[in-house]
Amino acid sequence: MSYQAPLKDMQFVFSELAGAARVAELPGYEEATFDVLSAILEEAAKFAAEVLAPLNHSGDQEGSKWANKQVTTPAGFKEAYRQFVAAGWNGLSGDPEFGGQGLPKLLSAAVQEMLNAANISFSLCPLLTHGAMEALALCGTEEQKQTYLANMVEGRWTGTMNLTEPQAGSDLAAVRTRAVPQPDGSYRITGQKIFITYGEHDMAENIIHLVLARTPEAPEGVKGISLFLVPKFLINPDGSLGSRNDAYCVSIEHKMGIHASPTCVMAFGDSGGAYGTLVGRENEGLKYMFIMMNAARFAVGIEGIALGEAAYQKALAYARDRVQGRDIAGSAASVAIIRHPDIRRMLMLMKSQNEAMRALAYTVAAAHDAAVRHPDKDERGRSQAFVDLMIPVVKGWSTETGNEVASLGVQVHGGMGFIEETGAAQFMRDARITTIYEGTTGIQANDLIGRKIAREGGATVKAVIALMQQTVAELSGQKGADFAAIAGVLGSGIAALGEAAEYIAKNYAADIKSVSVGAVPFLKLLGIVSGGWQMARAALAAQVKISGGDSDPFYPAKIATARFYADHVLCAAPGLAFTVVHGAAGALALTEEQF
Amino acid sequence: MSYQAPLKDMQFVFSELAGAARVAELPGYEEATFDVLSAILEEAAKFAAEVLAPLNHSGDQEGSKWANKQVTTPAGFKEAYRQFVAAGWNGLSGDPEFGGQGLPKLLSAAVQEMLNAANISFSLCPLLTHGAMEALALCGTEEQKQTYLANMVEGRWTGTMNLTEPQAGSDLAAVRTRAVPQPDGSYRITGQKIFITYGEHDMAENIIHLVLARTPEAPEGVKGISLFLVPKFLINPDGSLGSRNDAYCVSIEHKMGIHASPTCVMAFGDSGGAYGTLVGRENEGLKYMFIMMNAARFAVGIEGIALGEAAYQKALAYARDRVQGRDIAGSAASVAIIRHPDIRRMLMLMKSQNEAMRALAYTVAAAHDAAVRHPDKDERGRSQAFVDLMIPVVKGWSTETGNEVASLGVQVHGGMGFIEETGAAQFMRDARITTIYEGTTGIQANDLIGRKIAREGGATVKAVIALMQQTVAELSGQKGADFAAIAGVLGSGIAALGEAAEYIAKNYAADIKSVSVGAVPFLKLLGIVSGGWQMARAALAAQVKISGGDSDPFYPAKIATARFYADHVLCAAPGLAFTVVHGAAGALALTEEQF
Repeated sequence: MSYQAPLKDMQFVFSELAGAARVAELPGYEEATFDVLSAILEEAAKFAAEVLAPLNHSGDQEGSKWANKQVTTPAGFKEAYRQFVAAGWNGLSGDPEFGGQGLPKLLSAAVQEMLNAANISFSLCPLLTHGAMEALALCGTEEQKQTYLANMVEGRWTGTMNLTEPQAGSDLAAVRTRAVPQPDGSYRITGQKIFITYGEHDMAENIIHLVLARTPEAPEGVKGISLFLVPKFLINPDGSLGSRNDAYCVSIEHKMGIHASPTCVMAFGDSGGAYGTLVGRENEGLKYMFIMMNAARFAVGIEGIALGEAAYQKALAYARDRVQGRDIAGSAASVAIIRHPDIRRMLMLMKSQNEAMRALAYTVAAAHDAAVRHPDKDERGRSQAFVDLMIPVVKGWSTETGNEVASLGVQVHGGMGFIEETGAAQFMRDARITTIYEGTTGIQANDLIGRKIAREGGATVKAVIALMQQTVAELSGQKGADFAAIAGVLGSGIAALGEAAEYIAKNYAADIKSVSVGAVPFLKLLGIVSGGWQMARAALAAQVKISGGDSDPFYPAKIATARFYADHVLCAAPGLAFTVVHGAAGALALTEEQF
Repeated sequence: MSYQAPLKDMQFVFSELAGAARVAELPGYEEATFDVLSAILEEAAKFAAEVLAPLNHSGDQEGSKWANKQVTTPAGFKEAYRQFVAAGWNGLSGDPEFGGQGLPKLLSAAVQEMLNAANISFSLCPLLTHGAMEALALCGTEEQKQTYLANMVEGRWTGTMNLTEPQAGSDLAAVRTRAVPQPDGSYRITGQKIFITYGEHDMAENIIHLVLARTPEAPEGVKGISLFLVPKFLINPDGSLGSRNDAYCVSIEHKMGIHASPTCVMAFGDSGGAYGTLVGRENEGLKYMFIMMNAARFAVGIEGIALGEAAYQKALAYARDRVQGRDIAGSAASVAIIRHPDIRRMLMLMKSQNEAMRALAYTVAAAHDAAVRHPDKDERGRSQAFVDLMIPVVKGWSTETGNEVASLGVQVHGGMGFIEETGAAQFMRDARITTIYEGTTGIQANDLIGRKIAREGGATVKAVIALMQQTVAELSGQKGADFAAIAGVLGSGIAALGEAAEYIAKNYAADIKSVSVGAVPFLKLLGIVSGGWQMARAALAAQVKISGGDSDPFYPAKIATARFYADHVLCAAPGLAFTVVHGAAGALALTEEQF
C-alpha cells in the first residue's frame, strides 16, 4: 500500500485545534472556508498518492544523474512536475497578483505534508522555489517581479537558494562569492556554492538562483552580504528565454538519502562572470535570507512530520500483514505482529508523535496567517511572537522526532526493514538531512534560547505556558482515568518547562556558554511539552464530540493516543529540564585535548 | 584520520572496573596477566588500524557482488582475511585442544570491539564462525570436532548460522526446512534460508553451515527443531575437500548498510538434497541455537559500542579541524567547531555513552570468564546470573545507543555528514542492523523481563541494585561537586530502576501484556542505570589515582565524563520507570482498526 494522506486527522486539527474557522474570518481568506480547504486537501491527497508516491522508491534507486554540467532527474519526475504545475499546486499560497491562489498557510502546510510524505525528493524542488518567490515578492524590484515572479508562481521556472560555500556552511560571515557592479546596473557574479538543492535539473525551462555574494566595497562579515538574482537563462525583452548564463552545475553529491534530489556544486562565472541583478538593497542580503529561511525552516519541520507519517503508514501495513509468533498471553495460531505489545508500543510511539507534531505545526501555520492578516495589531503581534518562538521548535523538534519515527518504522519491519526493497530504510535515510539543512538542530536551538527567549526575558514562552496551564485546568474538569493521567503528566511537564525557561532567561546574559549547553535539550523539552499540550487539547475536543453523541471511533482513539503520548513521551520532560539546568558543568569541563 | 583503538580506556576498564587481575587468577587463565592482555590489545589495535580500517569505506562503496551462485567480496577483503588468519586472530578465545589460544572473553571482547570499529562488514565473518565453533565445541560429535573444528578455529574455514526462513523471522517454531535421515547416518537437507551472513563468499576454502531443520517425525513447533552441520564442500577421509554440497547462495540482499557483508538467500537441496550431519541430539536444536545466540548477542552488543566509538573518533577529528563561526562568548576570529557548546555536548554524549557501554560490556565479559572458570560453585552461579541478566542489556541497550551515537556523529559533521564520501553516514547505516539481528531489541527486552526478571522474582536484579547502592555510598564519601552530583542522580536512577523491576516481578504473571509494553523502556532503564553505575565506579577509581598523585589528565576527564553522563543521560531514568509502570493503558487501548 502506498501513502494515503491522513485526511481525517488533518481535518480534525484544522477545525478543532488550529482554528480554521478563525482563519476564514481573516481579510482576504473569506473564501477559504473549511469546506473549501477540505476539498483542496482531498485533491492534493489524490495527487500525492497517484502521481508522486509511485515515483518515490524508483527515484531513490535511480537517483538524479550528472553529466556534462547537466542533471537528469529519475524517470517520471519530469512528467510528474509537468502535472504538478498544470494542476496549479505550485501557486497555492502564491500572490494572486502574480497568478497565485492566495490561500492560507494553514492549507499549504497540510498540502506540503502530503507532497513530502509521498516524495520528499520531488517536493524539495517547489520548496526551494517558494523560498525564492517569497524573497522576490518582498524585496524584488518591480521589474524583477514582472520578469520572474509570475513564471515562478506558476512553476514553469523554479528557484534556488545559494548560501553555502565550501568554507562557509552555517557561517554566512565567511561568504566569498563576489558581485562586481557593471555600467548597465547589473552585477558580474563569480564564486562557488555547494549544497544547492535543484541547482540544476531538467524539470523546468529556467532556474532562478538567488545568490548571496559580496560587492567590492562591502564591509566584512554578515553586514557585507547582498542578495542577487542569477537566472540560468537570461530573459529577452519579449520575455522569451535568451542566452545561457555563466552559472553551471559542476557536480552533484553522493548522499545518504534524498537521492532523486540533485544537490549541486554551482560554479558562477567560470567563463568571466554570471549576469546577476541586485535583490533589495546592497549589504542587506542576510535580512532577506532570513525571510526565506523562516519559511524554509517551517517547511523542513513539515518534512519531518511527513516522513514520520509515511514511515508510520508503511510500518502499520506491515504489522497488520506480517504473521509471526503467538500472542504473548496465549493463542493457538500465529498472529499478526501488531498483536505483540512491543510492536504496538512502537506504532503508538510513531502515531502519537506524528499527531502531536502535526497539531503543533498546523497551529503555528494558522498563527502565521493571523500574524499577517488579522485586523487587530495586538493580535497580529501576539500571533507573530508565537510563530517566532515556535519556528525553531517546529523545525528542530519535528525533524529530530521524524528521524526517530522513521527509525522505529525500520524496527517494526525487523530484518525486512534493513532491506532497501522494503522502502522503510529510505524514509530513515531521507529524514536524516532534515535535522541538518536550513540550520542544524543546534542552530535552531541557539536561535530559540537567544533571540526567542533570553532577548525578551522569556515573555512569549511564559504567555504560552499560561495557555498550557489553562488546558490542564480543563483536563482536571473531565472525568475518567485518561484525563486525570494526562493532566498529571502535562502539569509536571509544564512545571519543568517553566523552570528551564526561567533558568535560561535569568542566566543567558551572564553565562551564555553554560546556558547554550542546554539549548538542544530545551528545544526538545519545549517541543515535547507543546506537543503534549496539543494532544491534550485534541483529547478535550474529542471528548466534546463523544459527549455530543458522536460514535466515530476516531475520537476515543484520539484520547487514548493522547494518554499514550503523556505516559511514553511527555514524561521525559523533567529529565530534559534537569539537563538544561544542571548539564553545563560536565559538558564544559574538558580541555579540547582531553577528548 | 582512521580509527585508532581507545587502548587507554580499554586498559582502564580492564584493570579498574572489570577486574583483569581476578580473571588472571582463574584456573587456565594464569598466563593472561594484565601485561599479556595489554600487549595483545596493542597488536590487535595495529591490525585493526592498518589492515581493516582502510577497507571499510571502499568495502561499503563497492559491496559484495553475487553472480552465478558465487559471491565476490570487495577488493582487499580476501587478502585481509588471509592476514587475519595468519596472525592467529580467529583463534584468540578458541579451545587450545583444537589450536585456539584459550584466552579470556574479557580480552576477546575488546579485540572484537576494535575489529568491528575498524570494519564491521569484515568482522561479521569471524563473528559467525565463532558462534558455529561454540555450538560444535559444546554439542558436536568427536568426529565433527576432529573434522571441522580445528580448521574453523584457525579460520581456514568459516561458519554460518542458518535460522531464518522467509515465513519465520524471529519465530523459530515456523521453521520448515526438512532433514531426512539416510541409511549411512547422515541427513538429506532441503529448504530455503534467508538473511544468512557470509553464507557464501570467497575468503575461505570451505564454509560450514549450521542449519536448523525438522526431521520427518519431529513434533511441531520449537520442540521439533534439530541442528545440522552442512559443509559447502564435503570432506574426504584424508581431510581434503571433496565434492561440492547441494547448498548454494541464490541471491544476496541490497541493504541499508554493511554492504560488504553478503547477506545470502541459501537454497539447500535444490538438486536433491544437501548432505548434513546431526549436531547433538534430534529435537534439541533450539537449545544449541540459544548457546550460539547468547555469544552472538553479546558480540552484537559489542558492535554497537564499536560503531559508537568509530563514529565518535571521526566526529571528534572533524570538530577539531573544521573552523567555522565565532566563539559564542566572543572571539575575534573563527574557531574550530569543538568550541561551540552544542558540538561539545554532542561529543560528550557520544564519548560518555561509549565509555559507559564499554565498561558494562567488559565487566559482563569478565563475569562470563568467572562463570565458566571460577573454582567456587556459588561464585560461578552468581557470575552466570549476572551474565544472563546483562546479555540482553548489552545487546539491546548498546545497539540502540550505538545507533544514537552514530547519528550524533553525522550531526556533528553538519551537511558533510550526509555526504557518503565523509564516512560518518556509513557508521549510521551499518549500525542500523544491530538492533535487529540476533533478536530485535523487543525480543531482548522480552527475554529480560520474562526469563531474567519475572521467572526468579527479580532476585538477580535486586542483588545488582544492592551493589549499585554500595557505589552510591562510596560516592557520598567523596568530596567535590562532581561526586555529589553523580551520587544524587545515580541514587534517583537506582530508585527508579528498583520501582520498575518490582512492578515487573509483581505483575508479570497476572498481566503479561501490560508488563510487556514496558519491556523495552525497562531494558533501556537498566542499561542507562547500569552504565551510570559503571561510570560512577570509573570516577571513583580515577579519584584514587588522582589522590595517589597521578597527574594523567585521563583521570579528571573520566570524572567529568561521569558527571556529564549523570546530568545528560542517567537523569532520564525516572521518566523511563514512569513509562514502565504507567505505560500500558494508552498502548493497549486501541483496537487494531483504530490505528
